[in-house]
Amino acid sequence: MAIPGPGYSITMRIQAPPSAGAAGDLTTAVGRAGGVITAFDVVESTAQRMVVDLSANAQSGPHADEIRAAVDALPDVHVRKVSDRTFLVHLGGKIEIASKVPLRNRDDLSRAYTPGVARVCQAIAENPDDARSLTIKRNTVAVVTDGTAVLGLGNLGPAAALPVMEGKAALFKKFAGVDAWPVCLDTTDTEEIIRTVQLIAPVYGGINLEDIAAPRCFEIESRLRDLLDIPVFHDDQHGTAIVVSGALRNALRVVGKDISDCRIVVSGVGAAGNAIIRLLLHQNPADIIAVDIEGCVHRDRPGMDRNLAEVAAATNKAAVTGTLAQAVRGADVFIGVSAPNILKAEDVATMADDAIVFALANPDPEIDPLAAQAHAAVVATGRSDFPNQINNVLAFPGVFRGLLDAQARDITDAMLLAAADAIANVVSPEQLNASFIVPSVFDDRVAKAVAAAVAGAATRQGVAGDPVDERTQTAAVGETV
Amino acid sequence: MAIPGPGYSITMRIQAPPSAGAAGDLTTAVGRAGGVITAFDVVESTAQRMVVDLSANAQSGPHADEIRAAVDALPDVHVRKVSDRTFLVHLGGKIEIASKVPLRNRDDLSRAYTPGVARVCQAIAENPDDARSLTIKRNTVAVVTDGTAVLGLGNLGPAAALPVMEGKAALFKKFAGVDAWPVCLDTTDTEEIIRTVQLIAPVYGGINLEDIAAPRCFEIESRLRDLLDIPVFHDDQHGTAIVVSGALRNALRVVGKDISDCRIVVSGVGAAGNAIIRLLLHQNPADIIAVDIEGCVHRDRPGMDRNLAEVAAATNKAAVTGTLAQAVRGADVFIGVSAPNILKAEDVATMADDAIVFALANPDPEIDPLAAQAHAAVVATGRSDFPNQINNVLAFPGVFRGLLDAQARDITDAMLLAAADAIANVVSPEQLNASFIVPSVFDDRVAKAVAAAVAGAATRQGVAGDPVDERTQTAAVGETV
Repeated sequence: MAIPGPGYSITMRIQAPPSAGAAGDLTTAVGRAGGVITAFDVVESTAQRMVVDLSANAQSGPHADEIRAAVDALPDVHVRKVSDRTFLVHLGGKIEIASKVPLRNRDDLSRAYTPGVARVCQAIAENPDDARSLTIKRNTVAVVTDGTAVLGLGNLGPAAALPVMEGKAALFKKFAGVDAWPVCLDTTDTEEIIRTVQLIAPVYGGINLEDIAAPRCFEIESRLRDLLDIPVFHDDQHGTAIVVSGALRNALRVVGKDISDCRIVVSGVGAAGNAIIRLLLHQNPADIIAVDIEGCVHRDRPGMDRNLAEVAAATNKAAVTGTLAQAVRGADVFIGVSAPNILKAEDVATMADDAIVFALANPDPEIDPLAAQAHAAVVATGRSDFPNQINNVLAFPGVFRGLLDAQARDITDAMLLAAADAIANVVSPEQLNASFIVPSVFDDRVAKAVAAAVAGAATRQGVAGDPVDERTQTAAVGETV
Repeated sequence: MAIPGPGYSITMRIQAPPSAGAAGDLTTAVGRAGGVITAFDVVESTAQRMVVDLSANAQSGPHADEIRAAVDALPDVHVRKVSDRTFLVHLGGKIEIASKVPLRNRDDLSRAYTPGVARVCQAIAENPDDARSLTIKRNTVAVVTDGTAVLGLGNLGPAAALPVMEGKAALFKKFAGVDAWPVCLDTTDTEEIIRTVQLIAPVYGGINLEDIAAPRCFEIESRLRDLLDIPVFHDDQHGTAIVVSGALRNALRVVGKDISDCRIVVSGVGAAGNAIIRLLLHQNPADIIAVDIEGCVHRDRPGMDRNLAEVAAATNKAAVTGTLAQAVRGADVFIGVSAPNILKAEDVATMADDAIVFALANPDPEIDPLAAQAHAAVVATGRSDFPNQINNVLAFPGVFRGLLDAQARDITDAMLLAAADAIANVVSPEQLNASFIVPSVFDDRVAKAVAAAVAGAATRQGVAGDPVDERTQTAAVGETV
């Protein structure tokens, strides 16, 4: 049931007869095969033949092959080549380094490099905190992965994870002016990952952990937070938790419920589920029931690991047991960060009135959002082709902008909650409705609002560094007055 | 005897009386104090006072203070503020990340990030070599240091080394379009450095080791070359050796000698000295004598470490013993990569006719180049204020451009020699003279010539990857014809 989209767009170079009806035949063939044409460019046209580049969106690789075959089957038509436009975008990588300093002549070189740079090095050696003003540490974040949980694809390894980390770096720059650099580690050993991040940390003002499998990710994050004097943020956990919290805040406004009256079911207790539960607990819901593949998480369930036991201890006051279907009965909110098609429409029908359903499994949600809408008041997914997309892009750029602006040494749950509120409040009361509980990822107010909220909370929480202006005027410029 | 230079340039904001002679008084005061004025900008001018920004080059920090005091001593003149222009260049860091892909709308996002990126990840997981075409690995080099030998300043640590690594990255981009990223490691443990570089390697197409102290740097480089399938190059060793070899080739052309007739004294057996000796040995000189702080290195010298014993075994056929002064007697070439002012003019006078002296210690050479010129036919230093500057910038950008273009898996001495020849040959026979044995670092033919030479040698040496064009047309674009 995937819809043809730009994530799978092809360009076919087609040779066809120069007849009046040829163009129509081509577009008809693509349309009948289920492709959505996005561009038709004539490359060559003579009395003998016509060569066109026809771009179309497909659903999948096999579907693209079908479209090609449909075109090739036309009389006197030959598809010479099929290019995958997504692959073309990635060719040669998606980010690059740019120099911020002029290097036109000897004077420039003497200041930016030797011999002038020696004094800058000595200043930092004497006062290590000056690295935060005199180097890229000021604005730079490491995007660290071991490639064990790449998107929904699982353990693809560090090299195959790189395209995601590059994309993330491009988003960091685009949405928040943050310089982010991919660190793809060729190990899955918890201790090695921790030690390596510690060893490379001098260059960075923050660490964004990414696509590291649970439960290893919990220990890595927690240990690094203790070891480093820069904030460590696992986006799969906290980025998701922030956006879910912000979206839930607005969804509750839409249905006129208070979170303290709500029973919330969280399906999936991996990285995202854990962090969502933790952030929701700060907001005092009536109860939370966590559900995983073995059913409801409750205090007396045997065989739980430390992580699950902690979740059990903090949730499920009513000690509900059984399946997901049993858990959602009468619940006000369902939040799925688990697996496709595990929630049925009839399950949603058993929820409380004005139910809220966030089905965030990607690319296929826990329930078809159209089916959920039949019984729920507000529905959100992780997909871009339905309203209310829960997308981490709403959170991570602004979060790190705020952390870097505040020169934060740490990140606290209060800062995550401030970010969630900021996202929610970008949607004005006039705009708010069941189909618009989160702003667009292209709304440039989002990152600014999140950054200001995070930096403000950092100051209130006592984890911010010295104010920036003061620093640039003293240590950095070597002023002598 | 340092000359005021742009590496130490200050800008004073000065309040002065609005009299006709005030400007003249200011410039006279700066000039008398030994400063070289580079700019005079009036910021504010009223009937009561004048405010000017006066920029000047100084020799050193104390000298800048003297200049300031000289200005402040003028009647009714007050220096409000002194900014150090070198520090201003470094403020906030010298490099940044730029996105190479458009992210204007949902379609862009779908191709560069999710969901489209998933297919790119899967393609690399299936064929890991595709990372070389579909990611930044294609064009990206790690500049790795532990901060133990930063410029001539010694062990400043990883944070204080960052300004140098950033500068290097800026030069890589400027001179060869290479994307280089600073990796400053918070450890001096050989095993940890090796392991960390191995773990971060998936992102990179090459490793440039930088400012790592000898003898640790030798083991780190040699082990990493064995462990990694990308080239590893220690710039302090091989960058210097390449430029010295190229310069020596041209210096010998100037004096009309053949290297096979030459006795060469190398003063300093650290990272640079070792690599210079190794590269010279490939060129069959009559003899090489290495000299360190304890005198000549020879086979029977007691207490040598493994490294020094290897040098002893390969050099000093005549078993010369004693001091540097004894070693240079009758020698054709002196190459110093050691310490300031250890070679006397009278020592140079004892060298062979048409002697060549490369005094490369920085910032103060082994001998004042003007003193050396009295007795030598060709003199070179590492300084930018004398002719014949031996500067690694002539080598490393082009070397890595060539390595990346060839998708080289390794780097061999033959490739280093090819780079040296390429640098030498940028100087045409018509241009060649005793004051012009190496091209300018701003000559944009240098990096191109070095890159072509290195890539060509990589192919001949059998360490190059698949030709680029073929790859981009097949795996990368996902072509189906």
